[in-house]
Amino acid sequence: MLRYLTAGESHGPGLTAILEGIPAGLPLTQDHIDLELARRQLGYGRGGRMKIEQDRAEITSGVRAGYTLGSPITLNIANKDWKNWQQIMAIEAGAGITEAITQPRPGHADLAGGLKYAQRDLRNILERSSARETAARVAVGAVCKQLLHCFYITIISHVVEIGNVGADSGVLTPLQIMEAAEKSSVRCADQKATGQMMKAIDQAKADGDSVGGIFEVIATNLPVGLGSHVHWERKLDARLAGALMSIQAINGVEVGLGFEASRRFGSQVHDELFYDTNQHGFYRKTNTAGGIEGGMSNGENIVMRAAMKPIPTLRKPLSSVDIITKKPFPAARERADICAVPAAGVIGEAVVAFELAQAVCEKFGGDSLAEIKRNYMGYMEQVEKF
Amino acid sequence: MLRYLTAGESHGPGLTAILEGIPAGLPLTQDHIDLELARRQLGYGRGGRMKIEQDRAEITSGVRAGYTLGSPITLNIANKDWKNWQQIMAIEAGAGITEAITQPRPGHADLAGGLKYAQRDLRNILERSSARETAARVAVGAVCKQLLHCFYITIISHVVEIGNVGADSGVLTPLQIMEAAEKSSVRCADQKATGQMMKAIDQAKADGDSVGGIFEVIATNLPVGLGSHVHWERKLDARLAGALMSIQAINGVEVGLGFEASRRFGSQVHDELFYDTNQHGFYRKTNTAGGIEGGMSNGENIVMRAAMKPIPTLRKPLSSVDIITKKPFPAARERADICAVPAAGVIGEAVVAFELAQAVCEKFGGDSLAEIKRNYMGYMEQVEKF
Amino acid sequence: MLRYLTAGESHGPGLTAILEGIPAGLPLTQDHIDLELARRQLGYGRGGRMKIEQDRAEITSGVRAGYTLGSPITLNIANKDWKNWQQIMAIEAGAGITEAITQPRPGHADLAGGLKYAQRDLRNILERSSARETAARVAVGAVCKQLLHCFYITIISHVVEIGNVGADSGVLTPLQIMEAAEKSSVRCADQKATGQMMKAIDQAKADGDSVGGIFEVIATNLPVGLGSHVHWERKLDARLAGALMSIQAINGVEVGLGFEASRRFGSQVHDELFYDTNQHGFYRKTNTAGGIEGGMSNGENIVMRAAMKPIPTLRKPLSSVDIITKKPFPAARERADICAVPAAGVIGEAVVAFELAQAVCEKFGGDSLAEIKRNYMGYMEQVEKF
Amino acid sequence: MLRYLTAGESHGPGLTAILEGIPAGLPLTQDHIDLELARRQLGYGRGGRMKIEQDRAEITSGVRAGYTLGSPITLNIANKDWKNWQQIMAIEAGAGITEAITQPRPGHADLAGGLKYAQRDLRNILERSSARETAARVAVGAVCKQLLHCFYITIISHVVEIGNVGADSGVLTPLQIMEAAEKSSVRCADQKATGQMMKAIDQAKADGDSVGGIFEVIATNLPVGLGSHVHWERKLDARLAGALMSIQAINGVEVGLGFEASRRFGSQVHDELFYDTNQHGFYRKTNTAGGIEGGMSNGENIVMRAAMKPIPTLRKPLSSVDIITKKPFPAARERADICAVPAAGVIGEAVVAFELAQAVCEKFGGDSLAEIKRNYMGYMEQVEKF
Repeated sequence: MLRYLTAGESHGPGLTAILEGIPAGLPLTQDHIDLELARRQLGYGRGGRMKIEQDRAEITSGVRAGYTLGSPITLNIANKDWKNWQQIMAIEAGAGITEAITQPRPGHADLAGGLKYAQRDLRNILERSSARETAARVAVGAVCKQLLHCFYITIISHVVEIGNVGADSGVLTPLQIMEAAEKSSVRCADQKATGQMMKAIDQAKADGDSVGGIFEVIATNLPVGLGSHVHWERKLDARLAGALMSIQAINGVEVGLGFEASRRFGSQVHDELFYDTNQHGFYRKTNTAGGIEGGMSNGENIVMRAAMKPIPTLRKPLSSVDIITKKPFPAARERADICAVPAAGVIGEAVVAFELAQAVCEKFGGDSLAEIKRNYMGYMEQVEKF
Repeated sequence: MLRYLTAGESHGPGLTAILEGIPAGLPLTQDHIDLELARRQLGYGRGGRMKIEQDRAEITSGVRAGYTLGSPITLNIANKDWKNWQQIMAIEAGAGITEAITQPRPGHADLAGGLKYAQRDLRNILERSSARETAARVAVGAVCKQLLHCFYITIISHVVEIGNVGADSGVLTPLQIMEAAEKSSVRCADQKATGQMMKAIDQAKADGDSVGGIFEVIATNLPVGLGSHVHWERKLDARLAGALMSIQAINGVEVGLGFEASRRFGSQVHDELFYDTNQHGFYRKTNTAGGIEGGMSNGENIVMRAAMKPIPTLRKPLSSVDIITKKPFPAARERADICAVPAAGVIGEAVVAFELAQAVCEKFGGDSLAEIKRNYMGYMEQVEKF
Repeated sequence: MLRYLTAGESHGPGLTAILEGIPAGLPLTQDHIDLELARRQLGYGRGGRMKIEQDRAEITSGVRAGYTLGSPITLNIANKDWKNWQQIMAIEAGAGITEAITQPRPGHADLAGGLKYAQRDLRNILERSSARETAARVAVGAVCKQLLHCFYITIISHVVEIGNVGADSGVLTPLQIMEAAEKSSVRCADQKATGQMMKAIDQAKADGDSVGGIFEVIATNLPVGLGSHVHWERKLDARLAGALMSIQAINGVEVGLGFEASRRFGSQVHDELFYDTNQHGFYRKTNTAGGIEGGMSNGENIVMRAAMKPIPTLRKPLSSVDIITKKPFPAARERADICAVPAAGVIGEAVVAFELAQAVCEKFGGDSLAEIKRNYMGYMEQVEKF
Repeated sequence: MLRYLTAGESHGPGLTAILEGIPAGLPLTQDHIDLELARRQLGYGRGGRMKIEQDRAEITSGVRAGYTLGSPITLNIANKDWKNWQQIMAIEAGAGITEAITQPRPGHADLAGGLKYAQRDLRNILERSSARETAARVAVGAVCKQLLHCFYITIISHVVEIGNVGADSGVLTPLQIMEAAEKSSVRCADQKATGQMMKAIDQAKADGDSVGGIFEVIATNLPVGLGSHVHWERKLDARLAGALMSIQAINGVEVGLGFEASRRFGSQVHDELFYDTNQHGFYRKTNTAGGIEGGMSNGENIVMRAAMKPIPTLRKPLSSVDIITKKPFPAARERADICAVPAAGVIGEAVVAFELAQAVCEKFGGDSLAEIKRNYMGYMEQVEKF
């Protein structure tokens, strides 16, 4: 049973996550996490804040001398800019909050949140709804990736579309995609498309506009049988879809061929089965299913895509209504990101990592890394001898 | 806290669901549920079994004299064809099971499930992974719809694409869409497209092939503020996406503009805010967000689409491998549906109904219908006076 | 992740339970369950209904040819007396319910439930709050016991006190206690105390009164390390205490020495540690901790006791108030049990069995019995070599 | 849905808790929490560490300008003595940990935890199993108390037995008990017993021994209908019992008369019902049920008791076995508390506060304090007019 909670306002003292259920004996250092935090902060088209932050995750529990203890892991990501926000975001009563935000931005949580929580200073909503929160999820995902590595599972992502520019990762292996994407300033494995995507971002910037896009997450080397068909919310695709959709500004998710599959004939979609003892037994030559059949990993790579809408905070203002005066106003912009798709891919890896780590823990039980590995090895042998 | 479990094998004695958390005092009869079960069984392109079944849900707990008691509700859907399966699917030990299924169908849970659960008779997997299970979810959803009706919330669905034939529901209101879809043999609100879709199904049938498609679920009249931005798995879009993705053969889900939004500029996507006391206050003229902002309902219609791959059981056989002999064979077909998209839409309504009913119960608390309604009314007034 | 829901009113058509998470490959027949249901119905001092019922659990899902499938297991316990209640407890609307129960019984859910759920016919509460519901939990527990048996874990119970008569099970082993208790008409392992307890029951009956008592549940042969110290609600004693306290009329629970321990000096309470390779390594000569240290099983027998208050339905009436007239009345009795402690012990076994089975599934993961056993064996070897 | 996670090792950098689900608009400052943390640290018979700590909870999220935001609340309790432990408890790899703890203390998590988590330095277990962790739970409980205060619910505790010395709080009201207990150095409302308890502690100290005891938690002014009879784990007594049993060294829990009730006749136990419009309607003159009937609050005070075993770390050593050498040794003591019962009472209040706050949130829904209060008031009126 792996679970976590995150907390923290965007301009508060910092973000905190507690991750409970990681087995004992996993090698874990702050560097593992900071690397992922840094990856989240990269990407062409981001605004100014990314430079301020240089996020670092301090581990304050659950780890000793570089190894996990089996106890809950606390991850703290301090807000480097906190000193400039101490008054506006003061915790204590009586703080001198002078100006309320009363102008909701379309496409954000502002108005719905204000109405739901009865808050007339919309800062009280947007501080938590901000995508800043995803830094905590990336930190949690980094720990989960560390666990998955012990089972040889790798999770990568790459951008496959930005501002209507599509990429072609064609014949590349996941490893090659990862390498190419890490070098691309938009995390795209297709060098040519990278240039065009940057141009699309530049154009949007020039126009005071923003662009969205699509990223793909690939998980390799999964054992067959993560997730389950026996009950709806144990299905791996359902869990992964929920996790990806929970990322800010994501409004579409697909597995394998996804929407495209719905437009083909059955005979053009499915993945025929083959057997070869040199291929670890059963295998497929195609992967239209994206690695999941019947809600379970089938041993092929898991391939999912998520669509991100363009950031709804624009220099080009949208019409909105002040919640106090009820008068129209041109919607303010809180930040200046033009495109967040490259970062979203890194966040996508993190949430997929958590779901897969949870599925591994459910499938293999165990409280120490050695125990889970032993259970895993026993299962892999069972599968091979099936 | 609304929750449910379903149980039952496709050819076993029947399906059972227990739904826990429905408040007391809700009018509920078997007819409410049977109506939805019947809707699930319709649709051009279904195979023979649909005629046998004529599903009916017997309520055996949680209801008295037509009203819910607040206690768990049991729904039993007997398998009308059980007499023909009593030997093959016998519960008791020593039953005369003569022939194991050893030939996994590509695109199904068969092989992954067999490996995971160490079952060498694949019937032990496919009986539960079958979409037959969704009848139980439709029954649960019917109860949830009944609850939602008390808050004037309606959930409809319609087919928007089958076999590459798209529909245009253009200027129709949700109510008009519902009426048109209920009359269409493929549950499509566009009469012209209906004909073309039927032709596509006919063609696939003639070719021994199958077709997929896309359905849309629309929920109307939602209060603002269901779901929450404060923690990732409380986000309404994440929950709805997980629920829709958990339906058999669904491999893509989107909210509002979905994937299309990722291809537009920010200025072309978002929904500007307006205010008019004659419009119940805040409103929007567009709904590209599909009724959800920041993980919360924003008061507009919730609009989601799900993509269904073509049914992977074909008359035109696929290559597979026998799990005992490890020899290739042409994959068997267990049934003869050509297209299940119309039914999938009804199932989509059901799973959306459950998630929304759960969100209503979380938001408004309460143990009796009168109490929830009172809490709802108080909140609606709070929102109006905001 | 083992979980279950139960449903059913006391005089409705029947009780239903769905148990989700039992691995595939467990031998299971209705007889295993019916045996436990029969044990629940025994016991000196029960009223007339026990004879009517002769409970039997029909399995309608999750099992094929005597083995579990890994899918949810449905257990149905029909109400043999349903024909006499079809009108009063009719599910359908418009049924001829002539007489509401408006007189709450002290010590029952009647009044609190009526107020909470806004029900003015208290039958709508008491039908579910009735201890009849525990038959479903005993059925669930029977399946769990079956799983635990595969790990050599046995759960027994015996009555240690009734109506102020204490038993002395002194030097008996758990096995001997079980054998003795099964022969006793009050499920007490002390033959002499059995006679005195029966007399106490007779006396209470003669006086129109009722008696309570204390039962003890013992689980033997547990692996060390079920539950966990790392988070409060993962502690095995916390889970077991909650489960036992959830049984109707239980209002006290203790582990090991329990309340008695709080009255001793530290030096008189704790269990010193010894080591002997002939004793499977570490062992203790005493078990004041009741087999749980730091929220984990420590390898000794788990020993818990639960106190049951006397049944609050008396022939000797208590003062109450009619909810309609607000006039006092002498509280009605719905049944005639004098003492339910022996049955409560059987229910105690069941709820303990569920919690331990859940802990086993969490610790050892796995989807088939063979897999869990392999993981278990690996762990036992790890412990032995520690 | 109120939930929380705690994290932190006893001698690590600090403890952290994240509490998710507290509504917006609740007044909350660090002082509210620090007050409870201070109460936990008092009590005659505590060892030296209590003086070092002077716990303070820093709020780092979920609160702005003294009011909650509806977002997760982070509470950090720094370890004031961390500077002395930085090497032994270093997080980073390669830290100079020189000496492993290999000698498990009887009565603690040490051995079971070491075996479960495959840890041969038992510090890796005892740092988390330590009761130090309860400071985080007290902080969480303090926030919950703050919420409960808004519904006029007060939770108090007092020590009713230490080292076999019983207290008599006789005719005192809960308020008087609280006042008397706060003045007593053992948190006992009976002044005479206080002196005797202190003597028992002194005696134990002189003997190198420890003493346990019993505390009582009382919650006043609860609305009727928290918890539910409809499903076992929704029963309020089950939840409260689990919560109390999860406190370190607690091994017995009872509600109302508890074990004593099992020794009385039915006619001597139950609480007759009366009605008086001047008494807010239905009331009882006795409270043997401890405020809970059928798993629901019945409107009377909730009264629970928990038994704490004497602290198992003694100056007078117990026999144990070194896990490396397998040789016997006299068990080391890690600290010098003689009696922790007064502190345990404060922790008891905290865990009860969480469960009741959760039950309030479930019953009344709502996202802002104003909304919950409105729902509460509507329900109270409904109850009054019943």
